Order: sequence, then structure tokens, then C-alpha cells
Amino acid sequence: MTRLVLKFGGTSVGDIERIKAVALRVKSEVDAGNEIAIVVSAMSGVTNRLIGYVNEIAPLYDAREYDIVVSSGEQITSGLLTIALQELGIPARSWQGWQIPVYTDDAHGKARIRSISGEEVIKSLQAGTVVVVPGFQGVGPDGSVSTLGRGGSDTSAVALAAALDADRCDIYTDVEGIYTADPRIVAKAHKLEKITHEEMLEMASVGAKVLQTRAVEIAMKHGVRLQVLSSFTNKPGTLVVDEDEVVEQEFVSGIAYSRDEAKITLVKVSDRPGVAARIFGPLADASVNVDMIVQNVSDDGKATDLTFTVTRSDLERAIETLNQNKNDLGYEDLRSDLNVVKISVIGVGMRSHAGVAQRMFKCLGDEGVNVQVISTSEIKVSVLIAEEFTERAVRALHTVYGLDAE
Amino acid sequence: MTRLVLKFGGTSVGDIERIKAVALRVKSEVDAGNEIAIVVSAMSGVTNRLIGYVNEIAPLYDAREYDIVVSSGEQITSGLLTIALQELGIPARSWQGWQIPVYTDDAHGKARIRSISGEEVIKSLQAGTVVVVPGFQGVGPDGSVSTLGRGGSDTSAVALAAALDADRCDIYTDVEGIYTADPRIVAKAHKLEKITHEEMLEMASVGAKVLQTRAVEIAMKHGVRLQVLSSFTNKPGTLVVDEDEVVEQEFVSGIAYSRDEAKITLVKVSDRPGVAARIFGPLADASVNVDMIVQNVSDDGKATDLTFTVTRSDLERAIETLNQNKNDLGYEDLRSDLNVVKISVIGVGMRSHAGVAQRMFKCLGDEGVNVQVISTSEIKVSVLIAEEFTERAVRALHTVYGLDAE
Repeated sequence: MTRLVLKFGGTSVGDIERIKAVALRVKSEVDAGNEIAIVVSAMSGVTNRLIGYVNEIAPLYDAREYDIVVSSGEQITSGLLTIALQELGIPARSWQGWQIPVYTDDAHGKARIRSISGEEVIKSLQAGTVVVVPGFQGVGPDGSVSTLGRGGSDTSAVALAAALDADRCDIYTDVEGIYTADPRIVAKAHKLEKITHEEMLEMASVGAKVLQTRAVEIAMKHGVRLQVLSSFTNKPGTLVVDEDEVVEQEFVSGIAYSRDEAKITLVKVSDRPGVAARIFGPLADASVNVDMIVQNVSDDGKATDLTFTVTRSDLERAIETLNQNKNDLGYEDLRSDLNVVKISVIGVGMRSHAGVAQRMFKCLGDEGVNVQVISTSEIKVSVLIAEEFTERAVRALHTVYGLDAE
Repeated sequence: MTRLVLKFGGTSVGDIERIKAVALRVKSEVDAGNEIAIVVSAMSGVTNRLIGYVNEIAPLYDAREYDIVVSSGEQITSGLLTIALQELGIPARSWQGWQIPVYTDDAHGKARIRSISGEEVIKSLQAGTVVVVPGFQGVGPDGSVSTLGRGGSDTSAVALAAALDADRCDIYTDVEGIYTADPRIVAKAHKLEKITHEEMLEMASVGAKVLQTRAVEIAMKHGVRLQVLSSFTNKPGTLVVDEDEVVEQEFVSGIAYSRDEAKITLVKVSDRPGVAARIFGPLADASVNVDMIVQNVSDDGKATDLTFTVTRSDLERAIETLNQNKNDLGYEDLRSDLNVVKISVIGVGMRSHAGVAQRMFKCLGDEGVNVQVISTSEIKVSVLIAEEFTERAVRALHTVYGLDAE
């Protein structure tokens, strides 16, 4: 008996017709003899409408009450899909977060799952009942409803799959899987059959919006096999698996890009010990995430230029924070640039292959693209370039690393 | 310290502006030093939309899942009103039915409240927090969410007032109180300052839609003082109280009418013992509520005409049931008539005053209105007349019983 968790996102349950279509798809999995637990998002638009209500009343709302309001979107879908399944003759029932329970911490509006009690749900599955669970919600330590933050339904699904010891967690979405590059930019991009958790994590962190970072982290930690696939077609998707499942290791798995970057350069920062801490400390206090950093070698040993990137939504706050600390930091000028994009080459294969970064720089040089900042991890090389070169860079790298489809 | 339960219906919380207005009204009660618990309905239109979703998927839905879907409407309002109160600086928190808990039976979609655990809510009130409760919902014996059926929020409010030992339960609605007659028909109708529970019950049962019958029953049983008032004005409403609170007993308190009636006449039913049971038994089995009944004296001791009324929505089912049993019942013909209205004269004062019914029949006779069926209770006389005489009859009776405003 195979036990599956199926997660359907907002567009997959966008209206009543789509909910009925999802029920038919679930039926084929039930007919194949599988035990099925389902995690659903709110119908598209519902969560935004509810958040709109809250903001209209009080921009600085109480997160506990916000959670009572917005968690209702998934609650509604869970009941509707259960009824749609029953209408097809499938035994089904819904379980709210507080009924399972899905225990979270008390960080309302952005709670983290602590544990899930899977016993009752497993009994229900073993009795042949399809279990329908609203994603994104749980119950806090004091018994109040909590939500996980936007996109939390992926996390709900993966955590539930871990708690139920499911054989696989299928994430149904509006794309057919994970591609070697954005198909809207690279015509020769192809869908990956498999990808490792780590590669998926790096891709999610550089802008591939298919899966929430947190969901991939949990899947990696608990060894949950994921499949990303489309609810609008009947094609197999991309499997996200442990590294040892990927037999033929690709050298590089994909080229990703993120436009959500902003560059800040502090000109002529005094080059003395501890200056980096004095710059990045206040930014961290202001909840600004700093990503890529490069410090130029100073000519005279007295002053240097420091460049780093932040997400675009954090730029204003970052500049404000730095200006407030200007006297202490002692820089001459602050320059910011939104005209940048981060391009990343990702692949677990690069651990055992030298020269990946070198080949990247040569390729971009050949294309006449200037590299502004570089950062690397074990399985990723990222560069910051001017935004107008995005398409040219991604396409050229896709070819250079042998990813173009035949 | 006065403890109040305030209930706001769908139009009172119809949109965000109205919810903010409700918060301001609550603030004035808090500023006056009262302990406040609030019961809210869903924003107008929300429940109908949710029911529409369910019916679009499956007309014969699972009531348990229906409850998960439709209970979300009140849940949303409870969170939004709590945030609106907090925005005004008032400590407030929401309590869902399963959090209080409000225990109900397992009749999903039309559950009845069994008991309410008021302890935690009372602690919260005593600590100075306004408590906001979604009406219409509770939790069944197996821990699943239940709903009380349409209009159940009145019942929630009264039951909560009883559980909290509240000094009064204020039902905010879109009318200013209980009137001696429908002001749309009788220009000289006036708002009653006080009315007894029993009178209110009779009024609710004959079409005055201001309060749910079940809510009045609970108020009567537990001695809960009710006030019906408008959330759109600042005027005092009508108090619904125990009989001993009404010092100057009105002879008659009001004239009500109900258009929701249909008349059925069985022609030449064989007049033998047990025939009434054979007629009304199958109707009860088909959940048809029979109201007024009149059996003519038979001329020959063999056959008689039997006339009774049912609600309009039950008419078709009643006719079908009777036709199926025609052979057993042995009637000659079945006639039905939708062109009828029930007019009722209500007042606890009629217990001690003879001649109320007599005066009613004379008045209607003087107006040339033919009385088709009569039924009486201790504090009510009802007659069935042709619908076109509704206005004339109500106005004439309003004058005859001395109810016309100066």
C-alpha cells in the first residue's frame, strides 16, 4: 500500500470547477489503491481579500486575530473538496489544524510547525478514508489558531508527509515541474526528471518560486520524496529526492535568476578592524537580510569600497539604517542600484568538478557581461550583473553547461 | 458591574465600515463600565455564497463538511471585529465555538446547543477583556464543528447570556424594536417599550422575523432579559422580559400576520374513529408541520370536510404524502389554497380579559372579512382569511384593540 500526500495550491482549487477536477484526479489515485491525504490552499484570491479586510481595519493588527480571519480560506476549501470527493463515492473527511492537531509555536502569522500528531489521521487512512487537511494553519501552545505565513501550505504538506511516513508528497501547481532554466527565457530549457533536495533548496533561494524554502528544508531533513507537477496536465513532474537516489549525476542541474536584488555600495569606508560588524550589525537589527558581499582591496590601507546586496523590498530600510549610523561607520558616500540581477549556476555535480566558476566567468566575459559581485556555495555559483543582460546570460550559460534540449 | 451580551446580525456587520461602527458602539458600552461579550453573524451575503459553493458541488452534501464551510463566515467576522476593537484601544479577543466550548448535539447543519462552558470566558470578562464569539457555531460530541441552522446566532447569543449569567442580552438588528404591528402596513403602529417572553414567542411563531423562536424559548426558560434594538440608530429598543416585570399589562400587545401559510381541504373524509391520526401521522413522518385544523361537523355522520394549514414550502410535500395515502384515508377530493394569510392578536392580558376573540370576529365581520379557520392559545387568537384582506384586517384590529399611536 502506497501512502501519498497530495498538495493542491490556490490556482489548482481556484473555483468550484477546479475543485471538482481535483476530486477526479484524487479518485484516480484512490482507484490505484493508494492511501491519500490531501493538503489544500485557499481558493485563489480568497486569502488576499481576507488580508485586505484586516488591513482596512488596522494596519497594525493583532496577529492572533489575523490568523482566525485568514485561516478560514483553507478551511473552506477543505470542506468543499471533501464534499466533492464524497460526491464521487469516495469516503472522505476534513481535519482542521486544531483537530489533527498540527502543533506550532506562538509566532502568529508566521508560525513554525513543532510537531504533528499523525496517529488519528493514519487510522483514518488505514480505514480507507481520504483525509483532507487545510494547509497553512495549525494550533499554537495556548490552543489558538496559528498560520505559517504566505505559501505555508507547501510546508504543511511536507510536514504532514513526514508525520504520516508517506511514500511521496506530490505538490500540484501551475507548472509542470522544475526546469533547467525559466522556459519563458530559454526556449531549449527542459524539465528535470530528478533533482536533489539541496539543489532545490538553492533554486528556491534564488527565485525559483515553485517551492517554499522552508518546505524543502523539512523534506531534506526528514527524507521526504517530493514531486512537483501540474494539476492542469497529466504528465509526470520533477522528483525532488535524496542525493543517493540520483544515479547519473548531472554536472550542473540548472540556471536560475532573481530580479529581487538591490545593490548598495559604501564608498571609502575607513578600513579598520571591526568595520564590517559595525555595518552589518545595525542592518541585522533592522531585519535586513544581506546576501552577496564584496570588499575591495584598499589602495592606501585607509579606505575601501564595500558592496553588498539586499532584497528590493528591504532597500529603503537598509539605506535609512546606514544613514542613521553614518557618523559611526565613517563612509564618504552611499550608492544604490536597482538595475541588477543575480544569476546562479546550481548542481551537486560541481562538488566533484573543478572549474565550474571559471567556465561561468569566461562565458559571461565572452558575452561582454560585466560581473559585479560573486558568491559561491558548495553547489552554487552566483554572480550579480546588470539587469539588461539577464536573458543573454541565462541562455549562454544554459548552452555552455550542456543543458540545451536536443 | 453590569454584564451584557451584544449580538450583531448580518446587516449590522455588513461591511468593514459597519464593523468599525459596531466597534464604536461597543466602546461606549465599555466606557460605561460594563463587561461585554459579543456574538456576531457572518457579513451579509457571505453565508449565502458559501452555501452556494456547497450546493454547486453536491446538492446532497455531507452536513459535517457543510458546517466546516459555512461556519467560516462568523469566524471571519469575529476576528475582524476583535481587531477593530483593539484598534480603538479596547482589550479584546475572539473565542471560536470549539474554544469556549459551545457543546451541541451531532445534528450537523441544525444542531442544538447542549451546554456552554462559561468559566474561561467569565475570567476573561472579569479581567477587562471584551470577548467576541462567532454565532451559529458550536462543537459536536465527536469534536467536529457544528452549526445551528439559519438565524442561529440569536440562539447563540441568548444561550451565551444564560451561561455567563448576563444582566441583559441586546440583539442589534435593522429594526428599532418590536412594534404593535408591521409599520409598513399600519402607519399608527408604535414601538413597544416592553413585551413578555411569551408574547414574543407567539409573535415569532406567526411571522415577526425579528427573533428566532428557539432563542426566545431559551431566554424564557433561563429568564434572560432581551433587548431588541437597531444598530443604525441610538434609540432604546424593546425589552423582552418575564411577565412579572411588565407592571401595566396591556390588554393586547400586538397584531401579527403571516403570509407563509397554505390551506388544504380534504373533502368528504370518512368520519370514523382514528381518521385524524391516519391523516396527520404520515404528514408528521414526512416532516410536514400542521398548524391550524378545523373539522366540520358531518351532516350524515359518515363523511366530513377536514381543513388545515401548512407552511407554503411544505405544501407540495404534504399533497404528495396525502395522495400516496388516498386509499387508506378515503377522501373524495383534495383542495389547496395559497391565497390565505394568518392574522394573530397577541397579548398576555387576554388571559384575564374575556371577549378578546369575540371582539376580533366582530371587527372582521364588520369589515366584511370572512374567517376560514380559527385557532387559539392562552395568549393568542389566530384566524385564517383571504390574503387580499391582510392590510384591512390588521389596520382595523389595531384600532379596535386601542393600539393606534396618538
